[in-house]
Amino acid sequence: MKLNEVGEDEIVRRLTRGLKLDQRVILGPGDDCAVVDSGSGRLLVTVDALVEGVHFEAGWLTAAQLGRKAFLVNASDIAAMGGAPRWCVLQVAAPPSTPAADLAALTRAVAAAASAAGASLVGGNLSRARELSVTVALIGDAPRRPITRRGARPGDLLYVTGALGEAALGLRELRRDAHAGGPAVRRFRQPPMRLRAAALLARAGLASAMIDVSDGLVQDLRHLCAASRVGARIALDRIPVPPRVHRAGPMLALTGGEDYELLCAVPARHQRRVDRLAARFGCPFTCVGSCAPSRAGVRVVDARGSTVPVIAGHDHFARGRRG
Amino acid sequence: MKLNEVGEDEIVRRLTRGLKLDQRVILGPGDDCAVVDSGSGRLLVTVDALVEGVHFEAGWLTAAQLGRKAFLVNASDIAAMGGAPRWCVLQVAAPPSTPAADLAALTRAVAAAASAAGASLVGGNLSRARELSVTVALIGDAPRRPITRRGARPGDLLYVTGALGEAALGLRELRRDAHAGGPAVRRFRQPPMRLRAAALLARAGLASAMIDVSDGLVQDLRHLCAASRVGARIALDRIPVPPRVHRAGPMLALTGGEDYELLCAVPARHQRRVDRLAARFGCPFTCVGSCAPSRAGVRVVDARGSTVPVIAGHDHFARGRRG
Repeated sequence: MKLNEVGEDEIVRRLTRGLKLDQRVILGPGDDCAVVDSGSGRLLVTVDALVEGVHFEAGWLTAAQLGRKAFLVNASDIAAMGGAPRWCVLQVAAPPSTPAADLAALTRAVAAAASAAGASLVGGNLSRARELSVTVALIGDAPRRPITRRGARPGDLLYVTGALGEAALGLRELRRDAHAGGPAVRRFRQPPMRLRAAALLARAGLASAMIDVSDGLVQDLRHLCAASRVGARIALDRIPVPPRVHRAGPMLALTGGEDYELLCAVPARHQRRVDRLAARFGCPFTCVGSCAPSRAGVRVVDARGSTVPVIAGHDHFARGRRG
Repeated sequence: MKLNEVGEDEIVRRLTRGLKLDQRVILGPGDDCAVVDSGSGRLLVTVDALVEGVHFEAGWLTAAQLGRKAFLVNASDIAAMGGAPRWCVLQVAAPPSTPAADLAALTRAVAAAASAAGASLVGGNLSRARELSVTVALIGDAPRRPITRRGARPGDLLYVTGALGEAALGLRELRRDAHAGGPAVRRFRQPPMRLRAAALLARAGLASAMIDVSDGLVQDLRHLCAASRVGARIALDRIPVPPRVHRAGPMLALTGGEDYELLCAVPARHQRRVDRLAARFGCPFTCVGSCAPSRAGVRVVDARGSTVPVIAGHDHFARGRRG
């Protein structure tokens, strides 16, 4: 079986089964971050890469935009656990013909994005390669109780930060024209940072489960539901989308991916508290549906209550899909 | 200026200049690992990658050998600071045609190598790519006083663990015949782990500076000397080499690279203590020369005291060189 016949989720499921973890590992692979015990407190660890020809094509991002995005997609994983980024290391594989100034701009952008998130770029490594790829590993301080994907219960409300679908629209525009500009392309180039919302949620203990939306809302909702062993029902017309995404079609918000917003389960009894708290998030925080017993599956319904058919989100390896 | 016109060392020097680091960063980029303050203790952080077409060609290593090596080259950086590996994350970029079983074998091998070093694989990420690359980021516990590259003084003795040149010989053999076997190829496939020697040196406080030999003895000696602002003189006939490396030529041990042994500076007054301690290293520990004032430069001398001309070691980006 080749990777493109198995699918990314199934591969990761197989790979993370049966790993031996020592007692200082609180939470191993399978969530947005690992949680480890440093002695005095808990740390979060995550890694993510942007690969040319997969996550972007030449010309879509400047070196600085690429470096910033490589940091932000990792910061999004730290946010999804309610943590605070602290230290990162950078691995760049680049063709020998890469301008040295680009590499400098990329590195400075990682360092600047880290700094803006309260973190430091502390080390790195540079390799030759045929295609450009940028990997960031990020260590963060965990909150007292990290928010995993696992704690959602039937009846919990489902919230998302910000708005969805715009980065996917930007990606579509860049596929048509590598020189495209405008707000959607800007959003593709610069994911949002939801660290403040995440930290407030973690401190208040209001979220039962959380994940960042990187593969598309429905795909990541399925991840959260699978980990929590629940189902979910979300209402299409409650999903926050900018008008231009709405015009381009609802699937962008459901399956487009690259949103890097947070999807969060909140017990219904905390609704009023979380709505009050959200005033301090610095971004919208919208209830889009609720969790259900697992037998109900994961459903998107339209205004009349009919199920909207959704083809699964982003898979790097599945045949014929983007990515 | 392109990367291949600037050279790796100069690029890294430029990139690490002027990075803003917060107060919880004890040592930033430029050494084998970064040192950060976790609150209760100090952690080491490092990252390294193996890229197909650069560090290996298809067929040279099985997936399991590749995974093990990707861990070990990082463990070598942790050893070079006197630390103990603790947690790692794995980023694999692989073509869609990669057999899923290979990915499973690679991941299990990283986990097994981590476990053998007292560490755990705690997370990872999988991306599509045209060429296979494996990145490991490794976090370790730092000793009370991490051994950096910076502390060597003129007169300090220079020691190396194990023996040099064999991995470079194995690489040469694989270049001639991708199906080559034998001890040199095995050594290329499996770097040594010098964690015990490193930890004993760190605990005893006997080493003034240390670096792992990954780019070739002379190149890494230059790195250590530059960081310590000293010169050095090493004796060609004291460098420990297996007989088959000796027959193949001394340059393999001086500039071959991929040794992943430790090069260590020891104040001369500690010579007898370090020689006694070395009985517990589980590997040879050989004095190959000593540090000198920086104006003396870095020299290799033969048995008659004549300077052996050495062309610099490994540079990923320099024109016409391997890597």
